[in-house]
Amino acid sequence: MKKVLAIDVGGTKIYNAIVNANGELVSDVEKHSTPSSYDDIIKTFRTIISNYENQVDYIAFSTCGAVNNTNTGILGSTGNIAKDYPKTDFRSLSNKPVFVENDANCAAWAEYEIGASKGFSNSIMLTLGTGVGGGIIVDGKLLKGKNGAAGEMHFKMRLDKHRKCTCGAWDCFEIYASGNGLRLTGVEMSKNPDITTYDIIEGKNKSDKLMQEIFNRWQNDILAGLVGLANIFDPDVIVLSGSMAQFVDTDYLTDKVNGEIVTTPLKVVKASLENYAGMIGAALLAIRSFNGKS
Amino acid sequence: MKKVLAIDVGGTKIYNAIVNANGELVSDVEKHSTPSSYDDIIKTFRTIISNYENQVDYIAFSTCGAVNNTNTGILGSTGNIAKDYPKTDFRSLSNKPVFVENDANCAAWAEYEIGASKGFSNSIMLTLGTGVGGGIIVDGKLLKGKNGAAGEMHFKMRLDKHRKCTCGAWDCFEIYASGNGLRLTGVEMSKNPDITTYDIIEGKNKSDKLMQEIFNRWQNDILAGLVGLANIFDPDVIVLSGSMAQFVDTDYLTDKVNGEIVTTPLKVVKASLENYAGMIGAALLAIRSFNGKS
Repeated sequence: MKKVLAIDVGGTKIYNAIVNANGELVSDVEKHSTPSSYDDIIKTFRTIISNYENQVDYIAFSTCGAVNNTNTGILGSTGNIAKDYPKTDFRSLSNKPVFVENDANCAAWAEYEIGASKGFSNSIMLTLGTGVGGGIIVDGKLLKGKNGAAGEMHFKMRLDKHRKCTCGAWDCFEIYASGNGLRLTGVEMSKNPDITTYDIIEGKNKSDKLMQEIFNRWQNDILAGLVGLANIFDPDVIVLSGSMAQFVDTDYLTDKVNGEIVTTPLKVVKASLENYAGMIGAALLAIRSFNGKS
Repeated sequence: MKKVLAIDVGGTKIYNAIVNANGELVSDVEKHSTPSSYDDIIKTFRTIISNYENQVDYIAFSTCGAVNNTNTGILGSTGNIAKDYPKTDFRSLSNKPVFVENDANCAAWAEYEIGASKGFSNSIMLTLGTGVGGGIIVDGKLLKGKNGAAGEMHFKMRLDKHRKCTCGAWDCFEIYASGNGLRLTGVEMSKNPDITTYDIIEGKNKSDKLMQEIFNRWQNDILAGLVGLANIFDPDVIVLSGSMAQFVDTDYLTDKVNGEIVTTPLKVVKASLENYAGMIGAALLAIRSFNGKS
């Protein structure tokens, strides 16, 4: 069975593990802090690869940033990693075949092959964390767009320039549906500038009325975005992952989305793979890609 | 060269013409009023088909409503045509092969094969009329979704339940970007409940300041939607068609969209085929479909 050295590159951490063709981790997971400079990031990659490349068939990166359509490098980084990160052709890092894909796309693919959206050709995965990531599968293929940058969940929720998004534009879905969005909704509704996401979730769990209202507002903002995506894509399923997904009520969202859309009924579900979905998806995509070519 | 009897079914009019494999109309265009009952609509179809089916290879429908993924019938109508319209398997209408596709999808396809988005594998077409239609092409294929209903431009522009959309939900793109949306923006900004789209366009052309502001607000609402679609799809081009598209400034929209998106630059252009794009696209899709199968 083919084996892949999978490397998950985020703004703060880099993980690596060996993944087999069933999407199973067959080694321990190693964790590194993401260095702040391009040169040090590449050094970390080289160290990981030199330690493990002899044990695997392919190298697969799941990375932040938009990845090109040839899956060889990065189009642009997202601001949470060294600015000059994009310039490498990742194929130069190993003599083994190297595959690169965006982390949200990798996670969406892992859920599609072996997780919560298995068996469904049309799915959308949203990663609700500090920000919001998106991976979209149409007819069993990742939606990449003309250059590979598709799946960005920056569509507007308001027209009155209310919240500035991390992307620089106003009122994107991300700045409402993310963990940061929950915090900002909390600040607005409680008038407490120091309120945290933790305060809101804790308060809600203790039946604090204001905290419940804040939480519900946040969940309904997520709902508003899901309705739009469901009308645009007519998907089988929308998968929610990431640290904030644990708090949402997917039965409520499924029911409400289906009550509003003009397309056909779908399910909103939680991801089943979570933490290592990026590495698993990258490995499965790499195997699919290189098996197809060899 | 293959010839197709193309029939364009709208809520108020039914058009038909013979279209060849180059997308050229090779007959006059016939026009019928759309009957209000299912039985009379089918009678009109039968009359048109019996008059022309001997002159063509295939029959192709471009119709309002969502069309199934086998291109044989309708999933659901949109409220502007007889409610029981969906129930037919259109293949029963002729001994010649019959192909059915949604009208916005047909128009998007016509622009892709021979019109404004020719040569671009990733495009979005928006039909700005009384409502807003959408046809999306991803990697050279129509985006249909799990059941064929994809491409509905009902994503939210606001979260405060400001305008009810024709679909029954609140604040969809359609109720802001359509001709009806321009009128409602005019009503809100002028406090004149009787203002018409014509008044606004005329006033704007005569440099009336308020009418210019109303128009600009409407155009910026369209812009807000385009930014979201561009971030989701990373398309090569967004094509604007329909009766309201003539008024928008595509250079302005191109410039502003590219200034806001996190994906890669695209062009916003006007459609080049306009009125008969639906029939042309249906014919070209039918030829593609039946040639592939035979």
